[in-house]
Amino acid sequence: MPDEARIRTAIAGADRFLNAWHGAPPIRDALLQLAHATAPDERQDRYGTGERVERLEQRVAELLGQEAAVFMRSGTMAQQIALRIWSEQKRNATVAFHPTCHLELHEEKGYERLHGLHARLVGDPNGLITLADLEAIREPLAALLLELPQREIGGLLPDWDDLVAQTAWAREHNVALHLDGARLWEAGPFYGREYAEIAGLFGSVYVSFYKGLGALAGCALAGDAALVAEARVWQRRHGGTLATMHPYVVAAELGLDERLGRVPAFLDHARALAAALATLDGVEIVPDPPQTPLFHVLLRGDREGLSDAALSLAEERKVFVFGDPRPTTSPSWQRLEVMVGEVSLRLEPDELRGLFAEILLRAGSAPAR
Amino acid sequence: MPDEARIRTAIAGADRFLNAWHGAPPIRDALLQLAHATAPDERQDRYGTGERVERLEQRVAELLGQEAAVFMRSGTMAQQIALRIWSEQKRNATVAFHPTCHLELHEEKGYERLHGLHARLVGDPNGLITLADLEAIREPLAALLLELPQREIGGLLPDWDDLVAQTAWAREHNVALHLDGARLWEAGPFYGREYAEIAGLFGSVYVSFYKGLGALAGCALAGDAALVAEARVWQRRHGGTLATMHPYVVAAELGLDERLGRVPAFLDHARALAAALATLDGVEIVPDPPQTPLFHVLLRGDREGLSDAALSLAEERKVFVFGDPRPTTSPSWQRLEVMVGEVSLRLEPDELRGLFAEILLRAGSAPAR
Repeated sequence: MPDEARIRTAIAGADRFLNAWHGAPPIRDALLQLAHATAPDERQDRYGTGERVERLEQRVAELLGQEAAVFMRSGTMAQQIALRIWSEQKRNATVAFHPTCHLELHEEKGYERLHGLHARLVGDPNGLITLADLEAIREPLAALLLELPQREIGGLLPDWDDLVAQTAWAREHNVALHLDGARLWEAGPFYGREYAEIAGLFGSVYVSFYKGLGALAGCALAGDAALVAEARVWQRRHGGTLATMHPYVVAAELGLDERLGRVPAFLDHARALAAALATLDGVEIVPDPPQTPLFHVLLRGDREGLSDAALSLAEERKVFVFGDPRPTTSPSWQRLEVMVGEVSLRLEPDELRGLFAEILLRAGSAPAR
Repeated sequence: MPDEARIRTAIAGADRFLNAWHGAPPIRDALLQLAHATAPDERQDRYGTGERVERLEQRVAELLGQEAAVFMRSGTMAQQIALRIWSEQKRNATVAFHPTCHLELHEEKGYERLHGLHARLVGDPNGLITLADLEAIREPLAALLLELPQREIGGLLPDWDDLVAQTAWAREHNVALHLDGARLWEAGPFYGREYAEIAGLFGSVYVSFYKGLGALAGCALAGDAALVAEARVWQRRHGGTLATMHPYVVAAELGLDERLGRVPAFLDHARALAAALATLDGVEIVPDPPQTPLFHVLLRGDREGLSDAALSLAEERKVFVFGDPRPTTSPSWQRLEVMVGEVSLRLEPDELRGLFAEILLRAGSAPAR
């Protein structure tokens, strides 16, 4: 395992970054920006009620073509709540999602330990859910969760026709449809459709403000008015109703104002970077070309060697490309998640290609080119 | 029901306030203060890990005489989590608390709907829990929750000897002890003991940063290292682990730095205000004298008349004392919760007495004096 402290130091010492996550601005600048976006005499929301929260919720509902929305602090809470509501409505505790779903991997099975839900995992962990996967299900479901894009496998998106067919299957089988849209904002250019048209296929929709949109934290759950009203009750049960959410609400508004329109530029740059990297021996892009500003780079080499090479390069040149790549099926290939954002635009494809060539060389993975 | 919009307008138009809640500074000033307390090159915590969060957690653990602490965003989450952990440890789903406990009144029964816990309510809703109440329990308990001070009944505190006897009863009966210390900071002067000595009677302790200490939101759960480690897992399940908690962490630190030492001054002022009000016909103070900066004022009159009188006075004189008093057992008496903080110090006892005399007069409740 690479040294976490060394990674933190390398990030702190760098002035350019491949990944939007690593290049987040200093938190003081973010706080000052939030202050300047707040009127001098403005009062904080009280327990999530107030004009500013309501304005944001309405804006998100409209963007997503849903009747209503509730601002929440975390997707973990929002999605468990959506599935619990569908479960009670359908009188069925079984919900279906992909094996790499956030609920399965990153929430300590809260859906089961807090909500008593059971998961029917559907699809291969390395690929998208298919209609055939759904047709093979032999038990009644309360809800089907689809994640657009499927983050853990490189931000893959199903073709529009596949998406329409899968959601039609669910409707035919009386299965509620929930959209995990943690990175839905990044999926717009691929479909070339309004967010409302994509999200309109679903009965409930979760979107995040802090991933592609770069806000501090926070998300929304949208759906019809009854679902959203019930979600507010569950939000209180979860401890999700804060004395004030003001900083997160303003950050979400700024994200929508300033970042949403930038997604096509991020995707273009992601594709340019990926195309340059794909010419290197010892590199594979997944998916190729990227479908969203998020994609994977597979690198030949061992984990420690690649990490050490990337960190020493960051220390020398103040360009941080990655710290600790993740394992893949093959011990001789490692995986890197790239999320292109504003900060990534300061790295040109040619320069990035040169950096990766150097990393592979230092790691003993590939000949210099 | 008084008009909520009129109350908001009256608060916004006032420049002095009885209650710390109403006199919170504009949120922009709070954000600027947080920014100035943040170093220019400081990075945000990532999912609640980082030096600043750890420093705060350690500070709170030491203050409370506990081994460890975890920063959380809401007491709803922290307390459900503590009780769930005790419940699993004791292999028993029954927990005991006062009928006015926050879990019973304000959390939509999350303890039951999320955690499958059952509540054995203990004590009279209008008084403190007594040892006799505990001795009357005829079923095994996983945990006993005591709230210090008992907020809904005027911030009442049991005598130290009673507290020691009740916690001894729990230990003798193998019942875990959880302290709801939402307003524990305000209880220090009454006991004249270190917080560590009070909290040390308990196996788990929740304290809030946004109530008496005036932070934006946020709280901590303290206990031994194993309990706190398990609480972090449950925090993730609850959706309580945010991309960054920085604004709330800094606000909590400022609260401890700037407000904790002010509690004795707040209590002194609360007692002076209460003593002045107690001389009025149509006023009763609960408890008299106040034991914490939080106390109740009972007012003779009907709810709408008192509300209208207080609001019209606020509109005329820009001093907001209350908007909407709450019902009591007697239809001819209403109840007002006062929480004395920094802003309340700008109201002198004599002036406040005059304001209440005028309100009672306008509401037709009492002769002018």
